[in-house]
Amino acid sequence: MTTDLQGTSIIGYTRSQGTGSPSQATNPASGEKLATEFFAPTHDEVDRAIELAAAAFLEYSALSGGERAEFLRKIAEEIDGVVEDIVERGPLETGLPEPRMRGETARTTGQLRLFADLVEEGSWVDARIERGQPDREPLPKPDLRSMRRPLGPVAVFCASNFPLAFSVAGGDTAAALAAGCPVLVKAHHSHPGIAEIVGQAVVRAAKATNMPEGVFSLLYGSGRDIGMALVKDPVVQAVGFTGSRSGGLALMEAAANRPQPIPVYAEMSSVNPVVLLPEAVDSRGEEIAEGLFASLTLGAGQFCTNPGLVFLPEGHGDAFIEKLKERIETAPSAVMLNAGICQAFKDATSDFSDTPGVETVAHSFTKQVDHRAVPVVFSVKVRRFLEDADLHGEMFGPGTLIVRGSLEEIEATIPELEGQLTATVHGTEAELAANRGILGALERRAGRVIVNGFPTGVEVCHSMVHGGPFPSTSDGRSTSVGTMAIERFCRPVSWQGFPQDLLPAELRDDNPLGISRMVDGKRV
Amino acid sequence: MTTDLQGTSIIGYTRSQGTGSPSQATNPASGEKLATEFFAPTHDEVDRAIELAAAAFLEYSALSGGERAEFLRKIAEEIDGVVEDIVERGPLETGLPEPRMRGETARTTGQLRLFADLVEEGSWVDARIERGQPDREPLPKPDLRSMRRPLGPVAVFCASNFPLAFSVAGGDTAAALAAGCPVLVKAHHSHPGIAEIVGQAVVRAAKATNMPEGVFSLLYGSGRDIGMALVKDPVVQAVGFTGSRSGGLALMEAAANRPQPIPVYAEMSSVNPVVLLPEAVDSRGEEIAEGLFASLTLGAGQFCTNPGLVFLPEGHGDAFIEKLKERIETAPSAVMLNAGICQAFKDATSDFSDTPGVETVAHSFTKQVDHRAVPVVFSVKVRRFLEDADLHGEMFGPGTLIVRGSLEEIEATIPELEGQLTATVHGTEAELAANRGILGALERRAGRVIVNGFPTGVEVCHSMVHGGPFPSTSDGRSTSVGTMAIERFCRPVSWQGFPQDLLPAELRDDNPLGISRMVDGKRV
Repeated sequence: MTTDLQGTSIIGYTRSQGTGSPSQATNPASGEKLATEFFAPTHDEVDRAIELAAAAFLEYSALSGGERAEFLRKIAEEIDGVVEDIVERGPLETGLPEPRMRGETARTTGQLRLFADLVEEGSWVDARIERGQPDREPLPKPDLRSMRRPLGPVAVFCASNFPLAFSVAGGDTAAALAAGCPVLVKAHHSHPGIAEIVGQAVVRAAKATNMPEGVFSLLYGSGRDIGMALVKDPVVQAVGFTGSRSGGLALMEAAANRPQPIPVYAEMSSVNPVVLLPEAVDSRGEEIAEGLFASLTLGAGQFCTNPGLVFLPEGHGDAFIEKLKERIETAPSAVMLNAGICQAFKDATSDFSDTPGVETVAHSFTKQVDHRAVPVVFSVKVRRFLEDADLHGEMFGPGTLIVRGSLEEIEATIPELEGQLTATVHGTEAELAANRGILGALERRAGRVIVNGFPTGVEVCHSMVHGGPFPSTSDGRSTSVGTMAIERFCRPVSWQGFPQDLLPAELRDDNPLGISRMVDGKRV
Repeated sequence: MTTDLQGTSIIGYTRSQGTGSPSQATNPASGEKLATEFFAPTHDEVDRAIELAAAAFLEYSALSGGERAEFLRKIAEEIDGVVEDIVERGPLETGLPEPRMRGETARTTGQLRLFADLVEEGSWVDARIERGQPDREPLPKPDLRSMRRPLGPVAVFCASNFPLAFSVAGGDTAAALAAGCPVLVKAHHSHPGIAEIVGQAVVRAAKATNMPEGVFSLLYGSGRDIGMALVKDPVVQAVGFTGSRSGGLALMEAAANRPQPIPVYAEMSSVNPVVLLPEAVDSRGEEIAEGLFASLTLGAGQFCTNPGLVFLPEGHGDAFIEKLKERIETAPSAVMLNAGICQAFKDATSDFSDTPGVETVAHSFTKQVDHRAVPVVFSVKVRRFLEDADLHGEMFGPGTLIVRGSLEEIEATIPELEGQLTATVHGTEAELAANRGILGALERRAGRVIVNGFPTGVEVCHSMVHGGPFPSTSDGRSTSVGTMAIERFCRPVSWQGFPQDLLPAELRDDNPLGISRMVDGKRV
């Protein structure tokens, strides 16, 4: 490995001494401890990281989009330079295969470069100019201009299931840094080594582009101790989190109970309902089964967008069921991210199979061994599903529940679902048109609605909404993926009566950045 | 009066029977009860209003921007038709003079028409289109399109200090209706008659434009009972509030503790600091004093943007102080909105004058009688100010505190202030340029920064941010005034792989609405 793992937190441009008993990563495939002991920082060290972030905010938030873009691109370049380290350490810490490591690294650097392009171009600030009318009657109209400004230092929690794309230099970090917010990252205990590899890359990039110390820190330690210290600190102005519902709810509660409450963007749980309309499932049953199986088992089912709930109209889909059964029964087992996640999946599937009215449609013949999960499909009648809220919950892993009933019953059930990241419909053109009610109901429960596709595979682009109504996220007004994510770390500010040379460049009459703006109500 | 005041809640297109002991409005100038008894609705009636709103959302959220615009314009027209009723009843309920009633009515109808223009034009939805690339390697790119969609039914609380512009058909109602959200309004006990006049106008407009019943309801009764019933109901998806900090905090707590937490947009308290730089205050001292006096006493100081804190550099501003003193001492008393607000102002000023280190600079010679307040100016040294958090609080009314110290001390104090709606600086061009640190520090504490003006007078336009960091508002990511306010009642949604004719018109390839959109990363 190029990277020398030190096992200590990164406090601005220094390394912590650490404290207490160290922890080690565990190889989920073997249960073996991996080299390098990781130490939590002391509370003084956490305070130091926070102070550095507060100081860095003053300087960093004043940098131009071009300067921030240079930093983001340099981070991407530094990560590219350690991809072999990631590929070496990553599978050991996560059980995820090498191609996934490479793909996720590419997605992560792609995200960083996309945000770099966004802030370099500059129109994302939503600049609005209303020129003054000193002679307006009865009152003069003031010169008033607005744009988005960064909130302040942001705490980002690494996700177990995305050691790169939703971790140290993942989506929230990229969006926050792009917006002008310093980032304090809390590493995930499952993959501390990947965290350090990426963290060191970020620090090299910050130094190389002369960023203020404290624009980035990386902290080890527990969520309850170090994580909560970040969330409760008055300097921290927003929180990004991807993980369990209990973890997200704890952060929301802590943030709401601060003297100054702050926004928490927690992505928590989603079963991503898939509705199969009769003609589609009868004409394309095998193809849909193949697609569902691939989506369901991708990454051992450990995606926030995993399709965990399928509505199948009674009397349809025999070939679909047959094919799904065949694929599930012959599916291999897969290593899950860590022992806790694997156990939780086994507990959830065992609860489902013990629930009255729930039938096991298919279960892999592969023996389910330690740390490895096998896919499973259950089914239940829609009326039973409506009676039992536990059946609405997520079994994080390669499991799905097929809910059967009439199309009318299915449509009536959608409003009873919790908020979802995604919702999917398979239908022929004619039956989609005839079922606009279902499409509308799904839109009201989800952040992204998909026709004739599958929810996994989250495109990083301008139009992606990866965020839905509670409890899929804490705040459905926001996305964690795509360029729109920059907005979550901003607030609008107005400047009234300012002389030209004291205005931000984005708001000057001569538009030196050449960005798209709204001037006196017209986009120019 | 054209309007027949019935004193009962408006539940969709019917009137409530009401319950309990009625309340009457009080003329704050005389203490006399005004005609018409107002009854709170029963809880069944509240539930009925909420059910109607839930049902209306399905239909109303699917209307085109043009149809919603027609409704908003009709509301404005109906309000125009009852302006004489408002002018007759309004001053009796609020103590505010007739010209203010006419001005605020015009602002309210202007707001409604501005939102009508916005949604009729349609670009506000932030439509984004990324066309699919089925042949992309290694994975196909899906067709993905996003835009803003309404959150759901919204609860709006009327404000004591803006019986029209922040009440029944005020900013939050206009923004929510424009976004596609039905509105449940909780009337303010101080001006129930104006509420009913406007509420009846809204209902006439809804019927005339064939809106679904339940798009609007108006409920009397107490905040703790009827207001909380709205905030806690699962149907309600957002809350708009302008009022006291304690009231706003109670709503935030209730909303955060729901099984599904929802956003609360509470505008609570702000002292709107004004920094006077030495040259400006020495060269334009009298003019600044006149402006400050006018801003401070406008509407008896009962504006959220009232300048309640003035930083004056030691050794400067003698003429400013002299002139301010002269104007304050000869100022008449003014009727405050209600007895409670008047008493709270008297208590706050008496606390200030009893605080060690605080001097009374000027006090009106006019006797302060019942329900009437007179302006007052205090001063304190900056070091004393820093020691006593109570001095940072709002005295809602025509009172201000001058804080004196060196320019360095003033700059160092700004980060210690709470979040503010506005922050103002008076300076010559040269000294503004020399004090960018002060401008930057104020920007970080406020939603709107003003140069050489005064904070009162909130322009309703595209670039207004009337919302600042906590506690000036509960959520500084949003504005309650101007067209950007529509965003607070929306969330983004993505459509993936949809056939053209099932997409919202805003997202179709042929752009039938002719709106500004982002297509494959470019604004077109």
